Amino acid sequence: MGWSLSNDVKIMSCPSEKEIAVVDFQPVGRKITIPTGTTILKAAQNAGIGISAICGGESSCGSCRVILSEKASVSPLTSLEIEKIKMDDRNSGIRLACQTKILDDIKVVIPPNSLTTDQRMQFEGDEASFAINPTIKTHTVQLESATSFDQGSDWLRLSSYFKQKGIILRNPTNLAIIRRLSPLLRENSWKISVVIKEDRFIHISNPQLFPLGLAVDIGTTKIAAYLVDLNTGKILARNGIMNPQIAFGEDIMARISYAMKDDQGAEQLQTCLINSLNVLVKDLINDANGNQKNLCREEICSQDQIVEAVIVGNTAIHHFFLGLPVSQLGVAPYVPSVSSSLDFEAKEVNLELAIGAEIHLLPNIAGFIGADHVAMLLASIQEKHDKALYIDIGTNTEITLLVNGRMIACSTASGPAFEGAHISNGMRAIEGAIEKVKLITENRFEILTIKQAKPIGICGSGVLDIIAELLKAGILDSRGALDRNSPLVRQNDKGLEVLIVPDEKTGHGADIVLTRKDISEIQLAKGAIRAGIELLLAENHLKSDDVNHVVIAGAFGTYLDVANAITIGMLPDLSLDKFSQVGNAAGVGAKMALLSQNKRELSKKIAGDIQYLELANHRDFTLFFTKAIMFQ
Amino acid sequence: MGWSLSNDVKIMSCPSEKEIAVVDFQPVGRKITIPTGTTILKAAQNAGIGISAICGGESSCGSCRVILSEKASVSPLTSLEIEKIKMDDRNSGIRLACQTKILDDIKVVIPPNSLTTDQRMQFEGDEASFAINPTIKTHTVQLESATSFDQGSDWLRLSSYFKQKGIILRNPTNLAIIRRLSPLLRENSWKISVVIKEDRFIHISNPQLFPLGLAVDIGTTKIAAYLVDLNTGKILARNGIMNPQIAFGEDIMARISYAMKDDQGAEQLQTCLINSLNVLVKDLINDANGNQKNLCREEICSQDQIVEAVIVGNTAIHHFFLGLPVSQLGVAPYVPSVSSSLDFEAKEVNLELAIGAEIHLLPNIAGFIGADHVAMLLASIQEKHDKALYIDIGTNTEITLLVNGRMIACSTASGPAFEGAHISNGMRAIEGAIEKVKLITENRFEILTIKQAKPIGICGSGVLDIIAELLKAGILDSRGALDRNSPLVRQNDKGLEVLIVPDEKTGHGADIVLTRKDISEIQLAKGAIRAGIELLLAENHLKSDDVNHVVIAGAFGTYLDVANAITIGMLPDLSLDKFSQVGNAAGVGAKMALLSQNKRELSKKIAGDIQYLELANHRDFTLFFTKAIMFQ
Repeated sequence: MGWSLSNDVKIMSCPSEKEIAVVDFQPVGRKITIPTGTTILKAAQNAGIGISAICGGESSCGSCRVILSEKASVSPLTSLEIEKIKMDDRNSGIRLACQTKILDDIKVVIPPNSLTTDQRMQFEGDEASFAINPTIKTHTVQLESATSFDQGSDWLRLSSYFKQKGIILRNPTNLAIIRRLSPLLRENSWKISVVIKEDRFIHISNPQLFPLGLAVDIGTTKIAAYLVDLNTGKILARNGIMNPQIAFGEDIMARISYAMKDDQGAEQLQTCLINSLNVLVKDLINDANGNQKNLCREEICSQDQIVEAVIVGNTAIHHFFLGLPVSQLGVAPYVPSVSSSLDFEAKEVNLELAIGAEIHLLPNIAGFIGADHVAMLLASIQEKHDKALYIDIGTNTEITLLVNGRMIACSTASGPAFEGAHISNGMRAIEGAIEKVKLITENRFEILTIKQAKPIGICGSGVLDIIAELLKAGILDSRGALDRNSPLVRQNDKGLEVLIVPDEKTGHGADIVLTRKDISEIQLAKGAIRAGIELLLAENHLKSDDVNHVVIAGAFGTYLDVANAITIGMLPDLSLDKFSQVGNAAGVGAKMALLSQNKRELSKKIAGDIQYLELANHRDFTLFFTKAIMFQ
Repeated sequence: MGWSLSNDVKIMSCPSEKEIAVVDFQPVGRKITIPTGTTILKAAQNAGIGISAICGGESSCGSCRVILSEKASVSPLTSLEIEKIKMDDRNSGIRLACQTKILDDIKVVIPPNSLTTDQRMQFEGDEASFAINPTIKTHTVQLESATSFDQGSDWLRLSSYFKQKGIILRNPTNLAIIRRLSPLLRENSWKISVVIKEDRFIHISNPQLFPLGLAVDIGTTKIAAYLVDLNTGKILARNGIMNPQIAFGEDIMARISYAMKDDQGAEQLQTCLINSLNVLVKDLINDANGNQKNLCREEICSQDQIVEAVIVGNTAIHHFFLGLPVSQLGVAPYVPSVSSSLDFEAKEVNLELAIGAEIHLLPNIAGFIGADHVAMLLASIQEKHDKALYIDIGTNTEITLLVNGRMIACSTASGPAFEGAHISNGMRAIEGAIEKVKLITENRFEILTIKQAKPIGICGSGVLDIIAELLKAGILDSRGALDRNSPLVRQNDKGLEVLIVPDEKTGHGADIVLTRKDISEIQLAKGAIRAGIELLLAENHLKSDDVNHVVIAGAFGTYLDVANAITIGMLPDLSLDKFSQVGNAAGVGAKMALLSQNKRELSKKIAGDIQYLELANHRDFTLFFTKAIMFQ
């Protein structure tokens, strides 16, 4: 009997189905392997990730919404989904986690509303006191009313008032403000509140309203925002969200690639960011009026009082926020479209603040050293400092060396390992992440998890602790090799691994381990940071011992154990009292620039004076890097 | 037999129908009385107004579109109309004139496309020569390309170029320009064209494009626009349209009332104006490329080259254009929101020019003396002038007296009679309007019509001629009384009237007459103008004989017979060589301000220096007016 054509066709239309699939949960940053056919909800539960399922997975509440890409290989829409999810949302890739079966490797984005655990946010930062002197000035103005004998225009009346006070202002280019003036004057018996910035009219309102400001630090992963009373400098509310751009790529280069793919790419990245910021601002106003009532004045705060926002982020985020092209930023020589500080109307980017409100963007330094680093320096540099290092650890780590008043900065590609990515059981710093680790006996770790939840993975500071402990115990050698004789070390099918928490003690019923490959990832990450530090020092004829102050900023920088970071060779071996962990210094710097004209001027000076050292071209970088990846 | 209730109801539901109705055709400005049940097309034809009806009224072409208000009392939509007119257009009040029967008094707006005759436009104006030196400066810039050793931002590269040339520019507030820069540089081998205005970046483009400017004079009735090559000063195209706001009121006060009625009013007035301007600009570009090819360069002109527009209009038009509130302009003390000159981005009012293009509005002087009068003075004042009068005749007539370098201006409510309104057979200056009249014998007028068409009505200059001729012949006395013994004078049911053209010689088969009431209207109009002139002179201790120059601007001012205007006492009795009829001086002034920075500065100086004399409050105005309405 021969092969029939129809048999052939049958075989072709039934390819062997995949049996296991990798699910990448975002923004949590956890990848897990599950059998195909598992629902997304089940997979998330297995991974210990809290997706909101009010009905307990009984397929009735419709709360377990997740976002999938168009091409995600999953089971078709069920009738429940068609009932519970609006057409528009379905078209945007919204599915119910309890209904959707995974058929192949997919990425699942869990929107904030569906996530039961929040990522730990870093709001606080060390803050030197400074005088409140915002660029925004508010004047309460009482004008003479118009009469038949004084028929000058309303605007002339207002600008003459300021002229008499010696304040010469440009004619407004913002028609919305002019449109408001005539009725506002007549409704308020010719007494109004006028907001001025430099030589410009920014806003006019009834005289009862006091001006608010907004400071935002847009990180690659997280966004932190502060609502501030510009008269008193008091923080009225603070709030944090995940950067929604994570759905388009975990790291910046992935997002740049996405933006370069087609014309809509950059626009999508901008739109999702702005939409989230608008929600964030509304929440801040609600917080100021409600949840944190004691922080606000007796008056009700409204969005129409927010007259200025200061926003910081790295250079790519800055470009995404402005809707600038990024293709020239994604290829050598990595040139920004614009790096100087900018002032423009919030409506230019559809940010919903007061009519006429302006946004001030702090300057960037280079393609990979952004305004967030400038803000961090603004918040951290103190007059007493000399020979100091300022380090922002992230996917790119920015390092500035201050020496005799000069500043030299570099950016080094440390990768996302310290954010939990590319680590077998790595995860971001959310509930259930192992954040501190000690080796108690030669075969037992003591661990601490965020919110004391059952462990489900390891975040950056935990990974760093484990490696330091292994080094100190001699289980790991300077080249990163594990001692296979240690009771903690075992062989898996791909190589050696260290058991951190056995399955019976974890939140998701699987072992938590650190593999040889994970150790290599950390070697590359810490090697990049250390090489940057050493090269900066060498270029300036300094040894690490000469440094008398090291400032470490950012969330990971706040939680890491400095002694352990020295042990693994990420940081130079200096006495611990030389180190400061300053928290969210970028956010603090943004707030300073919002509240102080002097600080804003200083940020321009910092960005203008700083010298950029390009490591990619540097003849010695490979040498330094090769040395720095070793564990001593 | 008693009255039954049903009978009562019947009577109430059948009110006696109106038998005749008044149709007000706009923008033509003709009112006619017709039997109800007449179609709009028939009514227009009766009135001699050319509505496009390609099929000849056979109800097949769908070209005779007119616009009616929502509440217009007309017959319901026919099936042909439903077939020929899109739903959206139907909802906007579009009807076919051949299908729609008039049931009561209505206003019919004939859109430009449906009008077969154009209103005569006044484009030309006397123009003293001046040096081309636009505020807009264009630079062709060749930058060094970015390299790994020169990674500064693209914007820094561009602003450094100007800094090296000693030109210090503000950081742009217009993100659209920054968004363009990086790709533009790379597409054009780092050579681009940059447009600068004062200390601002306005526009960037490929280096082949040359900058265009737009000058627009927005009159209450007509809009005149000029497309200009900013490098050479050459006019590439000119175009005129009716001001579409006529649909909301013939005169400015009616439009202000409309805008004050509800929140949408002012927005509607702005939107219809901007939409028409956008069409006008497209037509100008088409003209520059096609109809008037010889005027343009070899390159094709596009809207994206129009980098600046200078716009003039009276104060209310200025406010409508900007979307400013007008309620304070509509009631005493008649205060403008803003009167100073303004520069702002065209996108603020949705005018579709180049990305970053700016609009410059010349300053207003007072509530009833606008930027159009400033532009007229800019175009008309010459150094040799001393003791001169500058007169803009319109619904409001603006008059400026120049004496020993000082300028004093007033505005006088001359009404719309000279535009043909409130005159029994009055009409605007379109085809078929009687524009010149001579009394040949004691019972026969010789007339001249626009385009030598059969007469259908009388425009302003024609009315003025008739009255002058009647005065000279002694048929009219100084109080405005007609001599009932003249063979030209006859009695109608409301009083005396003069037969100008008998029905058999007119285009619409009805007599054209001038009534006693029409004469009164002209007395009021010319009285207001003359009273303004005399009061200005008296206030400055001058007699009319002292005046050695009188400039008369505007369309009516261009076509009127000065000798006859003296005869009826509208203008002072000076020798004719002292008068200049300068045409559309406001349009010329707008073009000057577009092409010359010096002229633009001068316009600010004129508006700043000019002294405003308010006639409404003036103790002597009634006295002067009462005297001036007499015919000597």
